[in-house]
Amino acid sequence: MTVNRRFTLAARPQGLPKDSDFLLTQDIVPPLQEGEFLIRNHYASIDPAIRGWLEPGGNYMPPVPIGDAVRASTIGVVELSRHPDFTAGQWVMGLNKVEDYSIGRGDGFTQPIDVDAVPSPTAYLSVAGAVGLTAWFGVEDVMQPAAGQTVLVSGAAGAVGSLVGQLAKRRGARVVGIAGGAEKCARLIDRYGFDQAIDYRGKDVEALSADIAAACPDGVHFVYENVGGACLDAALLNLAQGALVVICGLISEYNSAPQGARNIWQLLVKTATMRGYLISQYLDRFPEGVTAMAKLAGEGAIVYDEHVEDGIDNALPAMLRLFDGSNQGKMILKLI
Amino acid sequence: MTVNRRFTLAARPQGLPKDSDFLLTQDIVPPLQEGEFLIRNHYASIDPAIRGWLEPGGNYMPPVPIGDAVRASTIGVVELSRHPDFTAGQWVMGLNKVEDYSIGRGDGFTQPIDVDAVPSPTAYLSVAGAVGLTAWFGVEDVMQPAAGQTVLVSGAAGAVGSLVGQLAKRRGARVVGIAGGAEKCARLIDRYGFDQAIDYRGKDVEALSADIAAACPDGVHFVYENVGGACLDAALLNLAQGALVVICGLISEYNSAPQGARNIWQLLVKTATMRGYLISQYLDRFPEGVTAMAKLAGEGAIVYDEHVEDGIDNALPAMLRLFDGSNQGKMILKLI
Repeated sequence: MTVNRRFTLAARPQGLPKDSDFLLTQDIVPPLQEGEFLIRNHYASIDPAIRGWLEPGGNYMPPVPIGDAVRASTIGVVELSRHPDFTAGQWVMGLNKVEDYSIGRGDGFTQPIDVDAVPSPTAYLSVAGAVGLTAWFGVEDVMQPAAGQTVLVSGAAGAVGSLVGQLAKRRGARVVGIAGGAEKCARLIDRYGFDQAIDYRGKDVEALSADIAAACPDGVHFVYENVGGACLDAALLNLAQGALVVICGLISEYNSAPQGARNIWQLLVKTATMRGYLISQYLDRFPEGVTAMAKLAGEGAIVYDEHVEDGIDNALPAMLRLFDGSNQGKMILKLI
Repeated sequence: MTVNRRFTLAARPQGLPKDSDFLLTQDIVPPLQEGEFLIRNHYASIDPAIRGWLEPGGNYMPPVPIGDAVRASTIGVVELSRHPDFTAGQWVMGLNKVEDYSIGRGDGFTQPIDVDAVPSPTAYLSVAGAVGLTAWFGVEDVMQPAAGQTVLVSGAAGAVGSLVGQLAKRRGARVVGIAGGAEKCARLIDRYGFDQAIDYRGKDVEALSADIAAACPDGVHFVYENVGGACLDAALLNLAQGALVVICGLISEYNSAPQGARNIWQLLVKTATMRGYLISQYLDRFPEGVTAMAKLAGEGAIVYDEHVEDGIDNALPAMLRLFDGSNQGKMILKLI
């Protein structure tokens, strides 16, 4: 009889999630059915997207039901298998839940991972996981920036933003990042190789727009938006003709009513495009992305940072760090 | 010595334009230089876009200078020519000014027009003019809707919207229009052949979104946006997966601070695209568009409406009708 600790949704959060919205529950792992395998989760990925899955309507995924464990990408080891393609002892990644044990069925995002190809298995939750794939397909498919073009990244010191900047640089583009605070801005330049960094703190749309204009005198060809709000509105005021604004996330509005963007008029003035994308659109190309990102990370061609919090008890504090910006790298929760 | 009456910008409007923002001035037509020709303007097109050209920063065109006549598309007859390609007596269309006489140089939008191919020369300011070209390239190039797809048009009873709806119908799409008031909604169905009409008056985003959801149960594949504000936000809540939102205009915010759109988050959820376009992108394809629209109109395959106000004294009242929605068809000012 195996006990399964689970980070369970008790109530739908209003605004910033709080303690009483969750319960740490204990279930018994049910017997495996034919076609299933049991995963011992080692790490869970704590992503901004989780916040959206807690809303009553969900977002691009159905809402997490009250009383169920919170959905998250995890990596772990198969303990038992009644599935022909998965065997005990094998490492796997998948979209599971924040819990000790998940049942795998080999569908959707679930796939075996080669932990020897990367510095640490956690790479499959960061540089070679969902955030890495988000950056890979965002740069290599959605944007495809080239030399002579400028890419503006908001949330640039974040898990996705820092990778987007490095991938765009590798294609020869000029990369400008927006981040919160002098320390993160220094990290953009020193560690991630951005050409220029802009600190958004304490700035309204006008001031931020002036900073972007100074950093991007010929306008911005690509905006890679993780934040929304003032960052997005300021970026919209600095588009080059025919620019592409890619919406990866809008973290500034996840805990409040949607703000949207005031300056979409600029899409007309600059005959520009704003486009949202999800990595689920690239499911059939996941192996390409995982392999490419693992290789780049293994060679040291791109750097990445992980912020590991220890223990399922820290699931909520880990999530809250995403929204106060106090994480330094991809937020990962260690479960074992 | 030829006197030229001109509808001249005296002050930059704050909000809705008013009498004191303009002056009716009289100049003397200067002698023609080599390469120039003199156009006697017969009609001027009064378009929502003009409002943007009066702003200090202009929009996609430089601002109209204080003391200069207001920019507008016109049609007229060449009276004198020192240009090899234009001869006296010839009808031309071009981006000129609201004035009795304009100097043509044969550049930009200026081109000869065949007034015998259309029911009235004014067709070149409506169905075969800028609004017709806007609809043509918006449907035939930007959207390209097909059978089985739904197109939602805001400002659907307007000059562009009514043509967009008809062109989309000709391609086999289902077309739903949003307009203000029962009379305009009836016109959408009875005259322009829309499949369904939604009256936006007195409705907030939620109510409007419910109406759109009822009219488009499988979601909206294309939004053709002329209005912005609540119309756009409600449309964004009803996108089909992979939808395209085309921004043609945002008339609801031309006389106020930009509102933008709150629900751009939906672009991510629905992996959708929002795109602005201008007919100036299609300058080299103008003859194709003019010929196609003139032919459709000549055959009666599409219907169009013109609202002609008489006399340069009525330039401002004509412009204001665009914003209170009291025009019934493309607003045209008769100058002679």
